[in-house]
Amino acid sequence: LAEAVGAEVEGDGQYLLEDVRPLDEAGEVHLSFLDNASYRRIAGVTQAGAVLVRPAEKDLLPAACIKLLLDNPYAGYARAMQKFYPMQSPRPGMSSQAVVSETAEVDPSARLEPGVIVYAEAKIGPRTHIGAHTVVGQGVEIGADCFVGPNVTLLNLTMGDACLIHAGVAIGQDGFGFAQDQEGIIKVPQVGGVKIGNRVEIGANSTVDRGALGNTVIEEDCKLDCQVQIAHNVRLGRGCRLVAQVGIAGSTRLGEGVVIGGQSGVAGHIEIADRVMVAAKSGVTKSVGQVGAVIAGVPAQPIEQWRRQQALIARMGKAGKITKGVTEPRVTKTGKKGKKASGSKTEETS
Amino acid sequence: LAEAVGAEVEGDGQYLLEDVRPLDEAGEVHLSFLDNASYRRIAGVTQAGAVLVRPAEKDLLPAACIKLLLDNPYAGYARAMQKFYPMQSPRPGMSSQAVVSETAEVDPSARLEPGVIVYAEAKIGPRTHIGAHTVVGQGVEIGADCFVGPNVTLLNLTMGDACLIHAGVAIGQDGFGFAQDQEGIIKVPQVGGVKIGNRVEIGANSTVDRGALGNTVIEEDCKLDCQVQIAHNVRLGRGCRLVAQVGIAGSTRLGEGVVIGGQSGVAGHIEIADRVMVAAKSGVTKSVGQVGAVIAGVPAQPIEQWRRQQALIARMGKAGKITKGVTEPRVTKTGKKGKKASGSKTEETS
Amino acid sequence: LAEAVGAEVEGDGQYLLEDVRPLDEAGEVHLSFLDNASYRRIAGVTQAGAVLVRPAEKDLLPAACIKLLLDNPYAGYARAMQKFYPMQSPRPGMSSQAVVSETAEVDPSARLEPGVIVYAEAKIGPRTHIGAHTVVGQGVEIGADCFVGPNVTLLNLTMGDACLIHAGVAIGQDGFGFAQDQEGIIKVPQVGGVKIGNRVEIGANSTVDRGALGNTVIEEDCKLDCQVQIAHNVRLGRGCRLVAQVGIAGSTRLGEGVVIGGQSGVAGHIEIADRVMVAAKSGVTKSVGQVGAVIAGVPAQPIEQWRRQQALIARMGKAGKITKGVTEPRVTKTGKKGKKASGSKTEETS
Repeated sequence: LAEAVGAEVEGDGQYLLEDVRPLDEAGEVHLSFLDNASYRRIAGVTQAGAVLVRPAEKDLLPAACIKLLLDNPYAGYARAMQKFYPMQSPRPGMSSQAVVSETAEVDPSARLEPGVIVYAEAKIGPRTHIGAHTVVGQGVEIGADCFVGPNVTLLNLTMGDACLIHAGVAIGQDGFGFAQDQEGIIKVPQVGGVKIGNRVEIGANSTVDRGALGNTVIEEDCKLDCQVQIAHNVRLGRGCRLVAQVGIAGSTRLGEGVVIGGQSGVAGHIEIADRVMVAAKSGVTKSVGQVGAVIAGVPAQPIEQWRRQQALIARMGKAGKITKGVTEPRVTKTGKKGKKASGSKTEETS
Repeated sequence: LAEAVGAEVEGDGQYLLEDVRPLDEAGEVHLSFLDNASYRRIAGVTQAGAVLVRPAEKDLLPAACIKLLLDNPYAGYARAMQKFYPMQSPRPGMSSQAVVSETAEVDPSARLEPGVIVYAEAKIGPRTHIGAHTVVGQGVEIGADCFVGPNVTLLNLTMGDACLIHAGVAIGQDGFGFAQDQEGIIKVPQVGGVKIGNRVEIGANSTVDRGALGNTVIEEDCKLDCQVQIAHNVRLGRGCRLVAQVGIAGSTRLGEGVVIGGQSGVAGHIEIADRVMVAAKSGVTKSVGQVGAVIAGVPAQPIEQWRRQQALIARMGKAGKITKGVTEPRVTKTGKKGKKASGSKTEETS
Repeated sequence: LAEAVGAEVEGDGQYLLEDVRPLDEAGEVHLSFLDNASYRRIAGVTQAGAVLVRPAEKDLLPAACIKLLLDNPYAGYARAMQKFYPMQSPRPGMSSQAVVSETAEVDPSARLEPGVIVYAEAKIGPRTHIGAHTVVGQGVEIGADCFVGPNVTLLNLTMGDACLIHAGVAIGQDGFGFAQDQEGIIKVPQVGGVKIGNRVEIGANSTVDRGALGNTVIEEDCKLDCQVQIAHNVRLGRGCRLVAQVGIAGSTRLGEGVVIGGQSGVAGHIEIADRVMVAAKSGVTKSVGQVGAVIAGVPAQPIEQWRRQQALIARMGKAGKITKGVTEPRVTKTGKKGKKASGSKTEETS
C-alpha cells in the first residue's frame, strides 16, 4: 500500500489494514489520513492503525500509530481508497428487458441493465456499463470502460473511454437558440453534436446541449458536479472542474484546468484562459486572458479586488447611519480638519 | 372541520362545504382563508361560504360569510386541505412491467408502477408507492407509506417512513471528490451511503450524493424543493427547509429548523446553528454559531447589516457622478466646511 | 431560399448550397451569415458560397461571395436553417414496449417510443412524438405536433400544440407548500394542475410544479432553457424567455415577452410587467410595473443604476486602503481644502 501511494513507512510495514476511515472514526484496523488543518486538534487521540501524514506533522499523531509519510496525504488517501475499493468491470450481459436496435453495435463485454434502450447505429464499447432505463440515441458512440448511471439520456454524442455519467444526466438535446423579428420568435434548428473526451465525469442531473452548428466539446479529464449546465457550442479544455449548479452559456471556451466554484455562471461567447479559478457564486461577464487568474464576484474581477470591495462595503455598512434628511453615508474621514468640521456626525462612524 | 383545524365557528357550524378556493375564486360552497395581508383589500367582496380568519380581521369579511376564527389561518387552511384531499394509500400491486430481484423484499401492500426496477436485497415497506421507471438500487431500504414519483434513481440509500420523493430525483450517486498531484487528477472513490429520516420531502430533479466515507444524512421532517443539491457527507438537522435550487457543499452540517431561501449556496465543511434563516440568493461562506440568526448576501452576513449596505450602495449609485478625470465618487459630506470647499461638485450629490 | 428568408440576392440566385456553416468553417457549397460584430474581422476571408448580411456590411465580404441582403441576418439564418433542417413529423407507431391504458386516447398518427407509459384518460394528439421512458400521467392532455424527449414526467398537465419538451423535464409534481404551527410542519396538499400553451419549449431537466389550488400557467410561445424551475401558481405571459437555471417563486406573474437571464431568481407573489428584461444572476424581489424596464442586481434595480453602483464599488475597491487602525476607507475627495487637510492619506487614493 505504501508503495502504491508513494509513502515512506514509519512503523510495521506488514500491518494488516481492513478499511479506510476518517481520523475520528478509525480503529486499529483502519487507515486514515491527516490533511485538513481542522483535524490537527484530534490527531493526538486517533485510534487509527495507520495514518497518511506529512513528515512535518507526524508528531501530532500517537506514537503507536503507524505513519505513512508523504507530501500530499489527500492524494495518498485517494490512491489508497482506489486500492481498497477498486473500480470493477461490470459482469458482461444484456438484460432481457433491454431494447437494442439490430443496427447498434454493443461490445459483448458491455453490460446493459434492464430498460436500457439503444437506438440504430449506436456503438457501445468494451466493459462499458449502461444503467437501468438509460436511453442511447441514434448514432451515439460510447467508448470502453465507461459507467453510465440510470435514467440518463444520451443523444447526438460521441464519448471517449473511462467516463462516468451519473443518474439523470441529459446530453445532446437542443440548445437554447432563437431569433426574433417582426413575425415573432423563430427557433434556430440545433443540428450539432456533443464530443466528450476520455475520463470525463458528469454529475447527476447535469445537462449538456448539442451544438447549434458544430459541436459542444468537453475535453478529457474534465469533472462536472451535479446540476451543471453546459450550453451549445461551449468548449471545456482538458481537466476543467465545475462544481455543482454552475452554468456556462453558449459558445464560451474554457482553457485547460479551469476551476469554477458552485453556482457560478459564465456568460456566452467569451474565453477563459488556462487554470483560471472562479470563486463560487460568481458571474463571469468578460473574457479572462490571464493564465491562472483567480476571480470572484458579480461581475467577476480579481479576487483581491473583490475582497477589498467587500471589506469596504462591510465597513461602510457598519459605519453608515441612515437617517431621513441625511443623504450621504458617513463613510469618510478627511484628516483632522475635516473631522473637526463635521463634528459629532463623524463620531458616529468611529 | 372547525374542530380539525382548531377554529371557533362564527355562523352555521353545519354548513356544507364542497371544496377550498382562494378568496377571489371561492363561491358559496367553498371554504377560503384570509392570511396574507395583500388579500385584505378583496376580503369584503368574497363570495366564499366560509373563511378561516384571525379574530382581529373577521370584520373585513362580509356579514353573511361563516367565519372560522383561529390564530393561524394558513395552518388551518393546510389542515382543511388535508381533510378535503386526504393522502390515499395506493392500491397494492406490482405491475407486470416491473422488474424485481428475487432477493428483494417488497411488502405485499406496496405498489410498483410499470417499469420499476428493484435490485437485489432492496426492501420496500408497507403501502409505499414507487412511480413508473423508478430504479431502486441494490440494498436500498425504503420505509412504509412513502410516495416515490416516476423516473427517480435511488442508490445506496436507507429511507424512513412517509417520505415524498418527486419525479427525477437522483439519490446516492458519487459525490464530487478529487485529489490532485503531479500525476494529475485522482478520483476519490465514494463509498458511503445516504440516510433519510421520516416525513422528508424532496422536490423534482433534486440530487443527494452518497457520502465519501460515512453517510450523507437528511433528518426527519426536512423539506427540499425542486433542483436542490446536497453534496457528500452533508448533514441536515430535523425540520430544515431548503427552497428551490439551493446547493449545500460537502461535509457541511445544518442544525434543526434551518431555512434557506431559493438559489442560495452554503460552502463546504461549515456548521450552521439551529433555526438560522438564510435569505434567497445568499452565499454562506462561514459557520454561523448564533441560533436563529437571519443572514443575507454574498458573503452572507446579518441581514440588517446587509440591508444597510444595500441602502448605502443604492444611495451612492444615485449620488455618485462618474466623469473622466474625477477619480473619486461623490459620496461624502464633511460638514459645512468641506461642503463649502467642494462647492458645486457637492451639490450634484444632493 | 432568398425568398424564404426575405433577402435580396446579390449574385447568382440559382447557386446550389448544401448546408449552413459559421463564417470561418464555411466552404463554397455553404451558406453562412454575418451578424455578430465580432465576426467582422474574419468576414473578408470567408470561403462561404453565400452569406446572409446587412446591406451596410456587404462590402466586408469577398467579391466572389453571393450576398443575401437583409436587415436581420440572424433571423434569416434561423429561417434558412429551418429550410435545410425541417422539423419532421415522426413516423407514426406505438412501440410494443410502450404501456398504454385502455382508457387513454392516443392519435394513430402519434409516435410512442419504447418504454413510454400512458395512464388512464390521457390524450395524445396527432403527429406528437413521445420519447423513450417518458411517463404521461392520468388525465394528461397533449396537443398535436408536440415533441417530448426521453425520461420526461408529465403529470396533471394540459398542453397545447407544437410544444418541445426536452429530456428529463418534470411537470406537474407537488409545489413547495408548508404551514407551521406549534404542532410542527404541515404539508399543504397540492391539488392544482399545469396549463401550457402552444409552441412552448422547455429545456432539459427543468421543473414545473402543479398549482396548489388552481393552475400553474405557461402561455404560448414561452421558451425555457435547461434547469429552469417554475413554482406553483406562477403565470408566464406569452413569449417569455427564461435562460438556464432561472427560478420563479410561487404565484408570481410575468407579463408578455419578459426575458430573464441565466441563474436569475424572481421572488414569489409579485408581478413583472410586459417586456421587462432581467440581467443574468439577478434577484428580483419586488414587482416591476414599468413595461420594458431593464433591471439587474441583487436586489434587482434599473440596470443603469446598478452599473453606476458597480463602477463606484470597483473604483472604491481600487482606491481604498485597508490598514489596521484606519477605520475608514479612503474613498473621498472633498475639494481643495479637504485635500490639503487630509494630507498624505488622500494621496494614497489617487
